[in-house]
Amino acid sequence: MDSEKSGEEATITIQDTKTDPKSKGKAIAGATGLVTSKATYMQQKGGWKKGAAIFDFVLRLCAITAGLAATSIMGTTEQSLPFFTQFFQFHAEYDDIETFRFFTFANGIASGYLVLSLPFSIVCIVRPYATGPRLFLIIFDSVAMALIVAAASAATAIAYLAHNGNSDANWNAICNQFTDFCQSSSSAIVASFIAAVMLLFLIILSAVALRRN
Amino acid sequence: MDSEKSGEEATITIQDTKTDPKSKGKAIAGATGLVTSKATYMQQKGGWKKGAAIFDFVLRLCAITAGLAATSIMGTTEQSLPFFTQFFQFHAEYDDIETFRFFTFANGIASGYLVLSLPFSIVCIVRPYATGPRLFLIIFDSVAMALIVAAASAATAIAYLAHNGNSDANWNAICNQFTDFCQSSSSAIVASFIAAVMLLFLIILSAVALRRN
Repeated sequence: MDSEKSGEEATITIQDTKTDPKSKGKAIAGATGLVTSKATYMQQKGGWKKGAAIFDFVLRLCAITAGLAATSIMGTTEQSLPFFTQFFQFHAEYDDIETFRFFTFANGIASGYLVLSLPFSIVCIVRPYATGPRLFLIIFDSVAMALIVAAASAATAIAYLAHNGNSDANWNAICNQFTDFCQSSSSAIVASFIAAVMLLFLIILSAVALRRN
Repeated sequence: MDSEKSGEEATITIQDTKTDPKSKGKAIAGATGLVTSKATYMQQKGGWKKGAAIFDFVLRLCAITAGLAATSIMGTTEQSLPFFTQFFQFHAEYDDIETFRFFTFANGIASGYLVLSLPFSIVCIVRPYATGPRLFLIIFDSVAMALIVAAASAATAIAYLAHNGNSDANWNAICNQFTDFCQSSSSAIVASFIAAVMLLFLIILSAVALRRN
């Protein structure tokens, strides 16, 4: 956009000075110099933007890894205790707790979005001045971050309760028995928070890149 | 920034064509026309940006209201049951549940930030082209949104448990007894989610305003 504008201005200058061949030559030289210096400036800025877009792509890949790790760890979390009664075996699965089910679902959705957002990130690398894809990314990254943070912190609240219980509400800690279950669900929560932090960085990166248009 | 740049370009044009008085006059007229049309364009854009900044300010005030409502409702949530034993009276307070304490704390912090961010929003109204305050707002709004979403969803997980219980983990529903406690904490959670949605809109608004520089 910007380089087109400066080209237009140069053309106007040349038309205005066409009565005098000498000054026309000078004006062309001046305008060309102006365009060249502006082009160098734009190239430098373009390089910076390209670097930011590549960093965005790499960070996005890391966030996908973290999000998928959170989904798969939580999705495969289950534990059976080695002792059982005649009618009942003690068994814990992520599916037993609604919040953990929401956690798996939300992280899956966010990871899916992140995979689908990769082409937009590539467009930002190829065309560093395109603001449309960046705006798209910043908006949907915010939504994805909200989703992941919601899932992770809801699961944290339940995991905290499972570890410590709550005597006032008469909720007992279950992690004394189900240690493996609690450990693997905690790992999933940590992975999810890592994905959320990466998404926060992605939002900041996009905002900075949008600013320097 | 942009208007300064175009002024500079106009000066260069005039210097280049100073050999011929006629063409100089024409060049000045051309350059002035260019500057005027660009100024009109900038004015239109400035008006749009000013409108966006005013909307940002209003939305921020609403978010502050919602955040403070969430903090105060949750902070004053308590209930004593009308029956009691010789040694013990049944009493529920937000302070009994760690997640609700975090909820109050996080919403208070986020509301405090929102109040402190008002001057930056005013700067955006006064100077529609300043990108610094907008960038500042977009970054800290994202952090505040993450904080509020985390608080609201963690509290939701606990409130859900309080309403429905979990038979697998042997956690009983407590809302059968503490109806008022559960109702007012749920209202606080709703207010908090409203604040979070407003912050999401604020982020999107800042991103769109940053794009149209």
